[in-house]
Amino acid sequence: MDDIAADPSHPRYASLLMRHRLEVAAKKGMLADSAMIAHGRGEAFDYLLGERTTDSAARAARQALATLQAADRPVLSINGNVAALACDEMLQLADHLSCPVEVNIFYRTPQRMEAILAHMNERNQALGLTVTVLGHAPDAQIPGLKGPRAACHRNGLLNSDAVLVPLEDGDRCNALVAMGKSVIVIDLNPLSRSAQQGTITVVDELSRALNTMLDLARVEGKVEVDATYDHASILREGLAEMLASLNR
Amino acid sequence: MDDIAADPSHPRYASLLMRHRLEVAAKKGMLADSAMIAHGRGEAFDYLLGERTTDSAARAARQALATLQAADRPVLSINGNVAALACDEMLQLADHLSCPVEVNIFYRTPQRMEAILAHMNERNQALGLTVTVLGHAPDAQIPGLKGPRAACHRNGLLNSDAVLVPLEDGDRCNALVAMGKSVIVIDLNPLSRSAQQGTITVVDELSRALNTMLDLARVEGKVEVDATYDHASILREGLAEMLASLNR
Repeated sequence: MDDIAADPSHPRYASLLMRHRLEVAAKKGMLADSAMIAHGRGEAFDYLLGERTTDSAARAARQALATLQAADRPVLSINGNVAALACDEMLQLADHLSCPVEVNIFYRTPQRMEAILAHMNERNQALGLTVTVLGHAPDAQIPGLKGPRAACHRNGLLNSDAVLVPLEDGDRCNALVAMGKSVIVIDLNPLSRSAQQGTITVVDELSRALNTMLDLARVEGKVEVDATYDHASILREGLAEMLASLNR
Repeated sequence: MDDIAADPSHPRYASLLMRHRLEVAAKKGMLADSAMIAHGRGEAFDYLLGERTTDSAARAARQALATLQAADRPVLSINGNVAALACDEMLQLADHLSCPVEVNIFYRTPQRMEAILAHMNERNQALGLTVTVLGHAPDAQIPGLKGPRAACHRNGLLNSDAVLVPLEDGDRCNALVAMGKSVIVIDLNPLSRSAQQGTITVVDELSRALNTMLDLARVEGKVEVDATYDHASILREGLAEMLASLNR
């Protein structure tokens, strides 16, 4: 997928690979103007995390997987940066869960929707998967949101009981929580509105978080929901891990 | 200069204005691919700082101004992001110091150099200033750097005794320090190589740091160099201010 000639043993390989994927996606018209800036903010927080999956992030990823597995109608939401950075992992997770992915972007234009949908469908085929890719024909609205950003599929996001929304805008995360869904956020900033408002938040870089979930699914299959899981205390741990890293 | 219709009383106005300036600069061909990502990293650190000029940053800005005023041959270095974000402030500071600015970019292409030089010259004229804008005809090399990123002017960066290098790459900052110059860095990440290696580092958002210096110059005129100024302890204070903000 990535024709980057970089050396995987380079200490900055993972970070450079993600930038490369964004540049390719930008050329394809998949990204909004603010995409690169958002990615840079993520890089800074990942830098503070030590660019590793912390213990609290691993526990959040386990609970996220368990919650999606236990759901009746899970849906994985895809925006431009998610499609650029971790399209394959999202499709593999949807395949494992036998659920659809739905392209749902904040700055919605027909051109960007088409570019992202084309990319998702191309990767779906290249991976030999048959995941349902929604987003092309929205027939419902997320209550509480205005304009094109509310558009969604009735048999997708609207009627889902659990949604994975990586790198999600705070307003939309809030609107999904208000609908009574289990909202699983992946966000490197433990202080963001999305991270705070989500039902479960994985404070980790997107591809690392998804690979943690995929590895768990491969090794353990079905994972049990932890009834004692405490969202607020997991977030506090993520913040404490950043503070400890800054103090070193 | 900015035809942004945003409301200056909006709590995100300053941040949105800077993004707008970058988008305009990108359309003019002034920016490298990594410019937006670098800006996003800065935004994250500024968020941790509380988007304000801290006490330690104000003291660093005072020492920076005093050092530039006391220098025999000060030069202000301009790259793509600096030209986009704070072109006017850099020209006003150069005018106050009666010194040149020199466009000096890391990913050097003739097109980007031309776009940045044209923007600087246009603003120089619009502000009614006659600041010397160098960068168009490099005739020297910064020792220790390879390729086009070493190019500089003999009567500019090469023979300067104090340089202001906002948002500078770590390698080039290091090369300038190795030449024995006073190197004044403006960088929101107190842990970056540039911030650590600089002679004086202002941990603040670029336009806030420059306006602190310009206000001081207007109100106090000539500012005294503080012989007890301690670079390492000022950086530690900047980091402590971020930690305190994260802990709130």
